[in-house]
Formats: sequence, C-alpha cells, structure tokens
Amino acid sequence: MTYCLALRLDEGLVFLADTRTNAGVDNVGTYRKMHVLQPTPDRLFVIESAGSLATTQEVLDRIRRDLAADAATESLATVGHLFEAALYLGRLSHEVASAHREALREVGADGTATFILGGHVGNELPDILLVYPEGNYIRASDERPFLQIGESKYGKFMLELAVQADVDLVTAAKIALGSMMSTASANLSVGPPYDVGIYVNGARTISEFRIESHSPLLDKLSKVWERQLLNGIAELPPITQDDVTDVRTGA
Amino acid sequence: MTYCLALRLDEGLVFLADTRTNAGVDNVGTYRKMHVLQPTPDRLFVIESAGSLATTQEVLDRIRRDLAADAATESLATVGHLFEAALYLGRLSHEVASAHREALREVGADGTATFILGGHVGNELPDILLVYPEGNYIRASDERPFLQIGESKYGKFMLELAVQADVDLVTAAKIALGSMMSTASANLSVGPPYDVGIYVNGARTISEFRIESHSPLLDKLSKVWERQLLNGIAELPPITQDDVTDVRTGA
Repeated sequence: MTYCLALRLDEGLVFLADTRTNAGVDNVGTYRKMHVLQPTPDRLFVIESAGSLATTQEVLDRIRRDLAADAATESLATVGHLFEAALYLGRLSHEVASAHREALREVGADGTATFILGGHVGNELPDILLVYPEGNYIRASDERPFLQIGESKYGKFMLELAVQADVDLVTAAKIALGSMMSTASANLSVGPPYDVGIYVNGARTISEFRIESHSPLLDKLSKVWERQLLNGIAELPPITQDDVTDVRTGA
Repeated sequence: MTYCLALRLDEGLVFLADTRTNAGVDNVGTYRKMHVLQPTPDRLFVIESAGSLATTQEVLDRIRRDLAADAATESLATVGHLFEAALYLGRLSHEVASAHREALREVGADGTATFILGGHVGNELPDILLVYPEGNYIRASDERPFLQIGESKYGKFMLELAVQADVDLVTAAKIALGSMMSTASANLSVGPPYDVGIYVNGARTISEFRIESHSPLLDKLSKVWERQLLNGIAELPPITQDDVTDVRTGA
C-alpha cells in the first residue's frame, strides 16, 4: 500500500507522501510518490499516487510526453482549469490501466491507480482533487478539507485534529507527519522517507523537502504526541452510575 | 461493519463492543454483539462477534442448544480448556456459514463471522482468543495483548497507548472507549450504545454495563482527548534544516 494526503487551508496547501512500495513482503522498494510539475509559470501541479507503481510511472511518462508534444496535444500546459487537469490525469490513468487489464487479470493482479492532484491554473484559487481509477474526480469539502489515498484509516484522526484546530501551514505539515507516523507504525506497507510539499497561496512555487527515517524530527514529534496522550490518560474522568446502564435491570 | 475489542491485562480482561448493525444504509439496527455465558460456576465465556448477524445468532442458538443437550454432546460446559472452546465456537461458525454459503453466494453475499472469545475454564489463567471464520484461532500476544474484530484500523493507536502506559482495568476500559469513539466518528457503521465487560482475574464473575449514546461519559472522555491533542499541537517542535533533506541538492 501507500499513504498520501493533502490538506487545503486558507493560506495554502500541504502535501505529504510516503515512499514505500512493495510487491510482496520480499520485494520492498523506495519510490517517490509525490511529483511536482510546473509546465508554464502560471500553473503548478502536485501529483500524489497510490496503487499500481507501473501504472503511475506510465501515466507520468505520458504526461511528460504530452508536454513535449506540439501545442495541439492536450497536456497539463493546455488545460484551462485544475478540474480539466484532473480529467486529463484520470483519462491517462484509465487508459493505462485498461491497456494492461487483460494481462494483469490473468495473474489475479489489478493495475489501477488513484491520484491526488493539487495546485492551481492561472488565477484560480489552489485546490486539491482526488482522481479515481475510473477517471472521475472529487474535491475536498470545506467541512473536511483534506484528501487521503492508500492506507487512510489509521491516521485520519490526526487530520481531523488539524482541521479542528485551524492551524497554520507548517503546523498542519507537522500534524500530517503525525498522521503518517501513526499509519506507518500500524502498517508495514507504509514507511519513510517522507516527501513534504508546502504551497503558499500566490507563491507560484512550492517548498519541497524530504524527511529521512533517521530525521530527529520524527522522534521529537512522536515523543510530543505520546506524552500528551499519556497525560490524557491521567485526566480521564471516573465512570459513575450516571454514565452507565445496568445490563440486568436496564436502569 | 462492527467494532469489538478485548484487552488482556495482568489484573484481568476488558471487553468492549458496539451495537450497530446494517444491511445497507437504509436498514440500520441495534443488536448486542457481546454475550456472556457461564454454563457452570468454574468457567466464564465472553463472546464478541463481527460479520454476518444471521450467522452469529445461529451460532449462539446452537451454543445454547448444545448446553441444554445431554452431557455426551460437546458444549461450552464440556470443554476442558479455553482453546477447546475456541475450536468448538469455530466449528459451529464454519458449519453455519457453510450451510448458507451457496444461497448467499447467489446474491453476492458472504455469511462468515469472526469472533473474540475471552474468559477462563477452571483454574487456567483468563485469556482472549480470536476465532477466524475458518474455525482456527490465535491468542493475543504478550507484546500486543489486545484483539480487535471489525473496523479495527481507526482506533488501534489508542489500544497501543493503553498497553504502553500499563494502566489498570478501569483505565483500560476508558481508553478502549476512546478507541471506540475514534472509530465511530470515522465510520458510520460503528455506533453506540456500547457494551462493556470487565473481568477481574479470579472473580469468577464479570462486571457488565452499557454506555448509551447520551451518556455524559462519552462527552467527557472525548473532551479530555481533544484537549490533550490540541495541547500537543502547541508543543510540536519546529522543522529545522537538520530535520530535512533538500529535494534538489539531496543535502
């Protein structure tokens, strides 16, 4: 599996992706799953991928081939809106998976991929969209302004916390790392290094960095969360008669 | 889905189960998923179930029929060890699911169920076992002395916390409720009321109670966790140059 996420805040966007890939437990690799593309100065795209590594690589190769082709070819340089970029990405993804479907089915495999596409085109407000293997997409909502692909369940509570606390971009990135570490500790198919992208609205460029497995930050972050949760245990209220119903009497 | 869990501590056992059932979003019900059986004074069993409601009900009916039959019939009253009770439960579960398999397959449904079985037989130390639909079982380990069935991913971090903090039985029950609430808030198929069972080693009886959706305890517990996590955000360390690798230079 994989775990990638994106958050949309008032100030900008946060992206985070793990890098672990595996085809069985005896074939584990490290691949970048977060890709930044800026084909022209007026647009910036961040693509995160989950699912078939072969499909995501072929999709990225086709995106680059289309960008190098003549201006009549639809590409990330020609789309007029971010949603058109999502449809374009969805079309490529569906085409690639379809091209290999029969052969993969024979060995019981599935070549589909799911993407998060974030960024902006022209003067539109930056946004994040989730592109399904079938080629359609959804946006993040105002009430739940984050998207996750891959192993999304373990770390969801942390992202909800970031939304609730209405934090700034860098703090959101740190909470997202908490979400990632929580997932990686529960699921071997998710692991470091982690790629982080922070886009400030209007900046037209993205701050990108990688956090290696030996980074002191990961250790510091997990210690803070651990201490706070352990503090929480000490403060848990007692269970009183008002709190419960007796199973035998129903009172 | 469902979320049931059990913890094995030095002092005893903690059980927690939600009660929501659903066959599609327009057919939601409330059913007990935690069942206590004490067929003779020297043994006590707690059975938690996830999966097909029909299968779990038929399994429980068969368990009660066997208990009422003559002493030559294998039942929870005749087994000599907890693991034999697990094998007996697994055999019934597999038989019931197999009896309905063909008919269910025709409508694309699956009648399997998974169980947690906890308790003790005679003077054995109390234990918790997970019984698979195929009829085999595993115990909780010393390193990870809890079991989960159903929607287990969202709330796993809380159980790991309980283990790490080496808490008492009642505190473990409160942390388990935190795990349950975290799951219920993320997944509509899990919901209150919640059934709690606390077994103190050697007590030969179990403290059982229900926490209704309007219980003030749920509100108090979630406020404590929320406050601690928000405190955690304020304490998160800054991201420094030492923590990250530049994507372009690799340094």
